[in-house]
Amino acid sequence: MWNVGILGATGYAGIALFSLLLRHRDVNVTLITSNTYKGQKISDIFPLLKGSCDERLAGTDEDHWGKCDVYFLCLPHGTSAEKARALFDGKALIVDLSADFRFEDSALYEQHYVPHCACELLPHAVYGLPELYREKIRGSKLIGNPGCYPTSAILALYPIARNGLIAGDAFIDSKSGVSGAGRELKLGSLFCEVAEGFRPYNVGIHRHEPEIQKEISKLGGVKITFVPHLLPMNRGILTTAYGRLTSPIATDQLLDLYRETYRDEPFVRIMDAGVYPDTRHVRFSNLCHIGLKAFEDGRFVVVSAIDNLVKGAAGQALQNMNVALGIDETAGLDMIPQYP
Amino acid sequence: MWNVGILGATGYAGIALFSLLLRHRDVNVTLITSNTYKGQKISDIFPLLKGSCDERLAGTDEDHWGKCDVYFLCLPHGTSAEKARALFDGKALIVDLSADFRFEDSALYEQHYVPHCACELLPHAVYGLPELYREKIRGSKLIGNPGCYPTSAILALYPIARNGLIAGDAFIDSKSGVSGAGRELKLGSLFCEVAEGFRPYNVGIHRHEPEIQKEISKLGGVKITFVPHLLPMNRGILTTAYGRLTSPIATDQLLDLYRETYRDEPFVRIMDAGVYPDTRHVRFSNLCHIGLKAFEDGRFVVVSAIDNLVKGAAGQALQNMNVALGIDETAGLDMIPQYP
Amino acid sequence: MWNVGILGATGYAGIALFSLLLRHRDVNVTLITSNTYKGQKISDIFPLLKGSCDERLAGTDEDHWGKCDVYFLCLPHGTSAEKARALFDGKALIVDLSADFRFEDSALYEQHYVPHCACELLPHAVYGLPELYREKIRGSKLIGNPGCYPTSAILALYPIARNGLIAGDAFIDSKSGVSGAGRELKLGSLFCEVAEGFRPYNVGIHRHEPEIQKEISKLGGVKITFVPHLLPMNRGILTTAYGRLTSPIATDQLLDLYRETYRDEPFVRIMDAGVYPDTRHVRFSNLCHIGLKAFEDGRFVVVSAIDNLVKGAAGQALQNMNVALGIDETAGLDMIPQYP
Amino acid sequence: MWNVGILGATGYAGIALFSLLLRHRDVNVTLITSNTYKGQKISDIFPLLKGSCDERLAGTDEDHWGKCDVYFLCLPHGTSAEKARALFDGKALIVDLSADFRFEDSALYEQHYVPHCACELLPHAVYGLPELYREKIRGSKLIGNPGCYPTSAILALYPIARNGLIAGDAFIDSKSGVSGAGRELKLGSLFCEVAEGFRPYNVGIHRHEPEIQKEISKLGGVKITFVPHLLPMNRGILTTAYGRLTSPIATDQLLDLYRETYRDEPFVRIMDAGVYPDTRHVRFSNLCHIGLKAFEDGRFVVVSAIDNLVKGAAGQALQNMNVALGIDETAGLDMIPQYP
Repeated sequence: MWNVGILGATGYAGIALFSLLLRHRDVNVTLITSNTYKGQKISDIFPLLKGSCDERLAGTDEDHWGKCDVYFLCLPHGTSAEKARALFDGKALIVDLSADFRFEDSALYEQHYVPHCACELLPHAVYGLPELYREKIRGSKLIGNPGCYPTSAILALYPIARNGLIAGDAFIDSKSGVSGAGRELKLGSLFCEVAEGFRPYNVGIHRHEPEIQKEISKLGGVKITFVPHLLPMNRGILTTAYGRLTSPIATDQLLDLYRETYRDEPFVRIMDAGVYPDTRHVRFSNLCHIGLKAFEDGRFVVVSAIDNLVKGAAGQALQNMNVALGIDETAGLDMIPQYP
Repeated sequence: MWNVGILGATGYAGIALFSLLLRHRDVNVTLITSNTYKGQKISDIFPLLKGSCDERLAGTDEDHWGKCDVYFLCLPHGTSAEKARALFDGKALIVDLSADFRFEDSALYEQHYVPHCACELLPHAVYGLPELYREKIRGSKLIGNPGCYPTSAILALYPIARNGLIAGDAFIDSKSGVSGAGRELKLGSLFCEVAEGFRPYNVGIHRHEPEIQKEISKLGGVKITFVPHLLPMNRGILTTAYGRLTSPIATDQLLDLYRETYRDEPFVRIMDAGVYPDTRHVRFSNLCHIGLKAFEDGRFVVVSAIDNLVKGAAGQALQNMNVALGIDETAGLDMIPQYP
Repeated sequence: MWNVGILGATGYAGIALFSLLLRHRDVNVTLITSNTYKGQKISDIFPLLKGSCDERLAGTDEDHWGKCDVYFLCLPHGTSAEKARALFDGKALIVDLSADFRFEDSALYEQHYVPHCACELLPHAVYGLPELYREKIRGSKLIGNPGCYPTSAILALYPIARNGLIAGDAFIDSKSGVSGAGRELKLGSLFCEVAEGFRPYNVGIHRHEPEIQKEISKLGGVKITFVPHLLPMNRGILTTAYGRLTSPIATDQLLDLYRETYRDEPFVRIMDAGVYPDTRHVRFSNLCHIGLKAFEDGRFVVVSAIDNLVKGAAGQALQNMNVALGIDETAGLDMIPQYP
Repeated sequence: MWNVGILGATGYAGIALFSLLLRHRDVNVTLITSNTYKGQKISDIFPLLKGSCDERLAGTDEDHWGKCDVYFLCLPHGTSAEKARALFDGKALIVDLSADFRFEDSALYEQHYVPHCACELLPHAVYGLPELYREKIRGSKLIGNPGCYPTSAILALYPIARNGLIAGDAFIDSKSGVSGAGRELKLGSLFCEVAEGFRPYNVGIHRHEPEIQKEISKLGGVKITFVPHLLPMNRGILTTAYGRLTSPIATDQLLDLYRETYRDEPFVRIMDAGVYPDTRHVRFSNLCHIGLKAFEDGRFVVVSAIDNLVKGAAGQALQNMNVALGIDETAGLDMIPQYP
């Protein structure tokens, strides 16, 4: 049994992660923290836990060094790096859900976020997308858990990007449920500012764009354009990516390439021709569904769907932990999507 | 391992039940049926199952006698009774999710539904509300799974009704998510006829009223008034019940009575004073949350929340199976509510 | 033409009122204020106004005495009373949408709100429910616009309460869209804390309860119980009221009583027997729909629906202005509900 | 006063149109039809009209020749063409909301729809997008009202397409509320099949694609790719279009081009740089909001928002009528978007 701590357990990713860990057979959650709710029972904050778990929250700002085998950091960027520096000892595993350890290049990070206060840890960090970096994640002690949009976008484009099949631009149109904005008090997250409406935001300036770009760039020279939109629903990201292939491929062949690429992946499912993902079909699961169409003249459309809080955050963090610790990658992640 | 069949697996209750059973360690689902989708893979109908279960659906109208140890009937009323007659052999367990075996009195049933074609089975049937009838359910071979509204209403009133504490009327104001209306094509279930609106329906004529009334009547002479309303959301029932106690009791004392009544219940949670249920806190779980307030002059308000497809249908059916078979009552039902 | 000012124009009631006034043929909106957005164009805050109205917002805290013929105060309670004291001169009409002038009895107000800083104005104030107090509103210079819940509850019960037909308790179960909570940043108003869920709140302690009670008490000695609930939608209040009549009346007769009571009312519609209100059928209009059922044993259910921001706030404020100024009561209020 | 008829008044576009026409000062609605509800009062079907309009519905299949000055056909494709043939006399104005008169080329129509039964009328028909074809619409007697998606997509691309500024492909990612699917009983339109989910549909095979393509082709040789998605909300279309300009232009300059192009348009609003449309800001209005960003390397993103039932259907039909009859183009269309 591994002793696990969650720093920042009362945000949406934190509580989702906690719920998953409660059912993971190989771990004990021995530490949950929150500065806002320090000292309170987590079941008083989230009555859904009443009777299942009535533990009290420690303060995030306390010293938790050496207490756990695994630390999940569900903290704002900047704060995560500080905390990672305080906790990193080369023995405990740190999985950071912020952006602080997603960029190998601190300059790129600092251009889009804040000055990085733990640059010395960057060489230890692995970008935690198991479908691309499983071998590096194994045994790693510091994992930068990918952003929700990047997870959906990179998985959608990876099979064609790595094979150099994209000619010119890739346009990535993503749509996310509101939980992606977190549990902070923001005018734009109020029910009445979201329900019965739909809008793009941070067009051309969203910080997930450089994260997607740097991963796609590693696979080839494609320039991406990324526009996120806000869906009037709680959970789910759907990404629709457009572009042209270097030469036309039939839809069935392209599907085969995707199936081949993700053949051994426990959480990626490739749809049949003519079938496309729906966020409802992956909700509350760690799955990523991918469907696509290739046109006779070389144009392509690839669609991916994930649950932004699971494969896009807490579930992937757990998957990373499983891989890093060398236990069954699907442990604690065998949820069937809930419907309706 | 028990072999289990679901007749009518492609409605909302059927698919919810199937998802639960897939994760139950003591059963194998060896039969799933649907007349509409006969011969198709269930994962083609519900892509959320793709890769988890790709079984094909048999026809509901085929002869399935002797094939399973447990049959769940997720069929329209009338059809269920027919099917139960064809399958009942005193050995296999039948859990019927329709109304056909909820009424001991066939005349009362026929007054609100249709002529009953399997009256001879009624003496074998138990009303499957474990919190009231656990002992009768044990070893039973035919269980009438309660309606969703009755489950929420009876659990809300049971502790005071059985103790004769209600003076005069009980007014039951219930609100349900749309999945309670089933997956049939009805104008009133269209998104655009529900979203951004709220309405009562079947005021004073809903068929769950006699079901609630007959159970409350067994506990005393209280007359109930039941008004269901349709919520613009997928899942959940919240019931607010009003009335007067025979004499004033303090809120804390009344809460104690509820806690005492449900002390050993694995799925009922009593809130603290001043805290009230939210359907979000029980969603996708088999839990029933209850909160209440007693006024100094004897008036009371009791509020209960369940997931209509779980404790109000599939989960309770599974709980009934567990009790009837004598296995752990919570097996396959340890879900933590999903949030948000 | 009357010159009209809105103090607090950027909350949900304020902007709804502004939209209505823009289309009222007898008024010019010459003043709009907001402390938060002082100096900014209202169309920059609400792009829906872009091209229709690009006026700038004045500060609420400036001195606006003598500038307008009519002032609408869409301010927090307490602040409204202060502002009313600064503006009241017996000539300009003040319509206050807060609770500050709804209570004749300052002690009752202060018991539920804050110390009242403008008690000397209370004798001038009229409770602005035109269906009950039209004659008093005519020519009045200070109107306390009713709360949204009280509007729905009082209109539902008025015909039977004024005729002394209610025996014993009246239980009022109300459900409101989220816009009733205002545009302030509150955790409970976040999309992810509301969508796909339903809950009661402020059970037995909501400040609209004494407002309803004092009006119902004027009509007779009935004790009311009021429980508000939060609906996962933007707009609308549905109230379901329960109780017993002093002696049984047939549904059709009771409907006739309601029709007779509201015969000359431009905004109240009584449904046919067996038809009940839906908030969707009054959305964006100043209408109040009422339906009911009377049982053979004297029990009754009355259901009313309004748009909480229109008949429950801005629309009623406008109606009050029309009555007070002696112009056509429906001017600017001829909206047809929007569907879907 | 013009006498106006609506054939097919009980679908979502029909009832939206009827609501608009009721408030148009220059018309009398003298005919409303529905085969489904023939003989019934429209206020019994849509209680929102109770007291505002209690007219009875005629049968659509009756002979209505010569009865009206203007006929709006809100009928299925194929049926519309038949009806148009029966009604066309060169005097009455026919505005058809189906696809039957949107294609000059009957072969193209028949490739995507059904055999055309009124080809002889095609030379009389005008594509009713006033921003492109106002002069042709004036005095016309047969108008093919554009599809909702084409309206949003064409208005988004028109200024750059007509100036030959698009290099290569244009990728059009559109998202629509559910009312676009109509009021027919379809599984995919059920609340529980839409709420809390998001999906593309008809990828590469939607019939609005050829409609968009033929209009864009008239302006230049650009190949479009169109993917529609279903939003969990009632109303609104947001279109995000991507591509490359023939040479880089600064965002402000491109905005100026859009402002110049639509300078005299009463319903098109161009956002400021950095501001993007939200469907909530055009809801229930005939407005089209457009925002955009041009990148330094020539890539562009243009975003447009309309209400699919207003500018995308009923409102545009009314605008077309106004233009065709030579009355004020904004008559009956001065609605301010409702918020929230």
